[in-house]
Amino acid sequence: MEKYTIGVDYGTLSGRAVLVNARTGQELADAVYEYPHAVMDEQLPCGVKLGTDWALQHPQDYLDVLAHTIPEVLRKSGVSADDVIGIGTDFTACTLLPTKRDGTPLCFLPEYEREPHAYVKLWKHHAAQDKANRLNEIAAARGEAWLQNYGGKISSEWAIPKIWQVLDEAPEIYAAADRFIEAADWIIWQLCGQETRNSCTAGYKEIWNKRTGYPSPDFFKALDPRLETVVQDKLGTVITPLGSRAGSLTERAAALTGLRPGIAVAVGNVDAHVCVPAVGIDGPAKMLAIMGTSTCHIMMAEEEKQVPGMCGVVADGVLPGYYGYEAGQSCVGDHFAWFVENCVPAAYAQEAEAQGKNIHVYLTEKAEKLRPGQSGLLALDWWNGNRSVLVDVDLTGMMLGMTLATRPEEMYRALIEATAYGTREIIENYRANGVPVEEFFASGGISQKNAMAMQIYADVLNMPIKIAGSAQGPALGSAIFASVAAGEAAGGYDDIFAAARAMGRTKNLVYTPIPENAAVYDKLFAEYVTLHDYFGRGANDVMKRLKAIKKEQASE
Amino acid sequence: MEKYTIGVDYGTLSGRAVLVNARTGQELADAVYEYPHAVMDEQLPCGVKLGTDWALQHPQDYLDVLAHTIPEVLRKSGVSADDVIGIGTDFTACTLLPTKRDGTPLCFLPEYEREPHAYVKLWKHHAAQDKANRLNEIAAARGEAWLQNYGGKISSEWAIPKIWQVLDEAPEIYAAADRFIEAADWIIWQLCGQETRNSCTAGYKEIWNKRTGYPSPDFFKALDPRLETVVQDKLGTVITPLGSRAGSLTERAAALTGLRPGIAVAVGNVDAHVCVPAVGIDGPAKMLAIMGTSTCHIMMAEEEKQVPGMCGVVADGVLPGYYGYEAGQSCVGDHFAWFVENCVPAAYAQEAEAQGKNIHVYLTEKAEKLRPGQSGLLALDWWNGNRSVLVDVDLTGMMLGMTLATRPEEMYRALIEATAYGTREIIENYRANGVPVEEFFASGGISQKNAMAMQIYADVLNMPIKIAGSAQGPALGSAIFASVAAGEAAGGYDDIFAAARAMGRTKNLVYTPIPENAAVYDKLFAEYVTLHDYFGRGANDVMKRLKAIKKEQASE
Repeated sequence: MEKYTIGVDYGTLSGRAVLVNARTGQELADAVYEYPHAVMDEQLPCGVKLGTDWALQHPQDYLDVLAHTIPEVLRKSGVSADDVIGIGTDFTACTLLPTKRDGTPLCFLPEYEREPHAYVKLWKHHAAQDKANRLNEIAAARGEAWLQNYGGKISSEWAIPKIWQVLDEAPEIYAAADRFIEAADWIIWQLCGQETRNSCTAGYKEIWNKRTGYPSPDFFKALDPRLETVVQDKLGTVITPLGSRAGSLTERAAALTGLRPGIAVAVGNVDAHVCVPAVGIDGPAKMLAIMGTSTCHIMMAEEEKQVPGMCGVVADGVLPGYYGYEAGQSCVGDHFAWFVENCVPAAYAQEAEAQGKNIHVYLTEKAEKLRPGQSGLLALDWWNGNRSVLVDVDLTGMMLGMTLATRPEEMYRALIEATAYGTREIIENYRANGVPVEEFFASGGISQKNAMAMQIYADVLNMPIKIAGSAQGPALGSAIFASVAAGEAAGGYDDIFAAARAMGRTKNLVYTPIPENAAVYDKLFAEYVTLHDYFGRGANDVMKRLKAIKKEQASE
Repeated sequence: MEKYTIGVDYGTLSGRAVLVNARTGQELADAVYEYPHAVMDEQLPCGVKLGTDWALQHPQDYLDVLAHTIPEVLRKSGVSADDVIGIGTDFTACTLLPTKRDGTPLCFLPEYEREPHAYVKLWKHHAAQDKANRLNEIAAARGEAWLQNYGGKISSEWAIPKIWQVLDEAPEIYAAADRFIEAADWIIWQLCGQETRNSCTAGYKEIWNKRTGYPSPDFFKALDPRLETVVQDKLGTVITPLGSRAGSLTERAAALTGLRPGIAVAVGNVDAHVCVPAVGIDGPAKMLAIMGTSTCHIMMAEEEKQVPGMCGVVADGVLPGYYGYEAGQSCVGDHFAWFVENCVPAAYAQEAEAQGKNIHVYLTEKAEKLRPGQSGLLALDWWNGNRSVLVDVDLTGMMLGMTLATRPEEMYRALIEATAYGTREIIENYRANGVPVEEFFASGGISQKNAMAMQIYADVLNMPIKIAGSAQGPALGSAIFASVAAGEAAGGYDDIFAAARAMGRTKNLVYTPIPENAAVYDKLFAEYVTLHDYFGRGANDVMKRLKAIKKEQASE
């Protein structure tokens, strides 16, 4: 008798459930539910206005995803709830909310519903930047060793700056909050009735380390005396490794979803990291790039190394027993979208329309005829700053080599090549710091749709590129973790590695480097590195000075 | 009784005559005639195919311009031919043809009409590049002192490479040619029946120096033994200063044009240099920028200095008695045209059309709202190489500072700013080498039509910019030289300086630097200089290496 698990992927604007065969990983049905409140960046439902750079969400939307999508995948697949042995979820992160001791979000309480700080702060809530800046200054001044595990800088998107902002701007909310918890863990709490904290978000977003724990009370006191006991007061100190069972589905959650009470609930997870088993990765030195508007690079290693400019290294941060490494590029699909919106001439748009083609397809048809280096162009992929390995939001884009004969498809290809060079820089940085990278996998929209980009990546990296077998990588990954939470006895697996091998998959398609292309790209990458270091490592800080002038001039 | 002169400006595709009041410079009528053969870059009229990079013209077209336009301006203006006291002309250069001893172009002779080398080689005939390269190598190896008068490099567009190409590829044409002569001088020969050679083309294009003459026979012999006596055999050694009378209109030319025989004919001139008196410039340190698809900067000085990276310094090369300096930017209007053709999105094109606006006007309306530095962008204006001060055709374009919020009008403005920085670099290079630049004048299409660009130039240069009073600068300049050739007794002038003051003019409009803009542009120009030197002076030759790779890849 076949058994099934359900994975639910919570994205920025919607949640998606997928129902999966627990033996084969085959996806039988999926369903999407868009959050009714979407991203609240201007006002609350009650009309209270929000400040600049705010981005909130409503936790009711997360519950509504369960109520809508799970019955739908059961219905679509024809699978009986009796045969579903577990559920797993993944979330954007750091997406954080204050709750009462029983898990009730403060924003559910009438007395706080007009208070912005009572809501979920979405990952891209950027209004705590000044807190992040001060935190980084203080941590650097104190020589906090953990700072080097995060490339030397904590992002304003992460938990401590966000919590500090609540304390500073709404001390009564801070006082009323018994817990600050990742939405990734909160949704699990709603499913199994029990608070857990997963090692992935704790490690990457809450500055927790398996060996050394959280930063010291002294450090928090240096931020603000009222924060001295924030860890014991508001966060959990019991951290559960990924691949564990958080608990069993409650009666209430069963009623909400139509699933059977008592089935396994996996601990929370993060949308990027959860993709790793979905492509069948079961060990170290295999890098997965999740390529969408931005790219996230996830990899495991046997050892904990301090690699300059990565986003974080976390024990059990991806799969249990390994150190999880994360790096990123802040502008990939966004980059190409910017180009199409701002730089593609009317003649091309008209011709694409006449041929009934999407403009990306039309440009790609022209660009894929070009040989590497034939355009004479070279770009730095910093239109949205550099996340790894320079960790510098104030860097900006650069392109050179243009002549009067330069055509749009040449610039388009140069931008794609630039993102491939950025990925190679990340890989070479790992290798130079003793972290091996031996295989390369790609998932996410670009990996599924853009064969030219994938061939360019294969040629630039000079590595074969294996493509994710599922277009729903995160939801499939969550379903895989659900099968491990359920265990072999129930029809799942006892360890995540076996589950990954059985349920994860790549396509038959592998992009293989073409030696003569790789040889040209070696030369071009050497040029990229020279410019990367010249503009990015202090030899010429022109980009920062231009940004400063821009700021002055824009504010006049 | 008012007297009049006629100026004829020979451009790349047409000739234009203007009839001018010799006292006031007022333009009474103009007429344009397009060359029937235009530019021959694929084949001769008889069907003989041309090679890559060839560009020829037919000298009959030049005669036809006289026959059509001069009667037309007489008719339009109602001026009697009896009151026209002189004619002057200007030409593109180096535009060169082989003739018999009497001035008959070889291509007029039936035996040579199927021979490409018998025709006029237009300035942009680029098929002698290998000759120019070898010439430069040999000159550098021999330590030829004159090389430094041309920024260290002779262009493939100039006379000696073109003549050498004829010798090499068609020795029978070289042998049949009694003369190689600039079209600028050939047309004067047709008008007055006498061969003259003007100091401007001789100095800038034929490597003639007032003090030292042509390069030595030894040098020519080093190029090719058959060239040893090229100067005495094929070129003229009597060079006539600008502002002189070449002779008197022949009966034949009078019959062709409807003018009176015997009136003054000025010596030949060049389309850029001839504009100087047309804006009333009568002395040193006043730079004139002729701004069109490219920009040419003409200025006079009291002294002959070797300024690195200029196009040439020539005694009597602009107005007699002064050293004429020429510099240039190879991509100005072309730059903006490239951007509009390749980088302006459909949405902008549609909106411009809906508003009934030219796309340049539409972009300019958006771009002129930006403050200096507000875009955060900086570009190097090298889309077509750098003519001055780096003299390097292998340099290419660069832009940096782009973010996901960068808009087309910001890039458009950045390109305009880049050309202004390029002009400032030229000015500062003169000043650093002891050649003063005190005033700035602009003529040509951009000066007349683009107020935003002119204000940007004023702010970047931190100099007031005076705008040419005539849209027909070259033809007016030729008419001014005609009035000097005619002399005061005939109703003209005895010296070009008096003529320039009386007949040349600027508009009332002066673009004045705005101090707060100039302060920001000082900072941005400093950034430009750093990048200019980094990419242009050998610190990082990435542009050349990319071009080399491009060449390899394109030829595969």
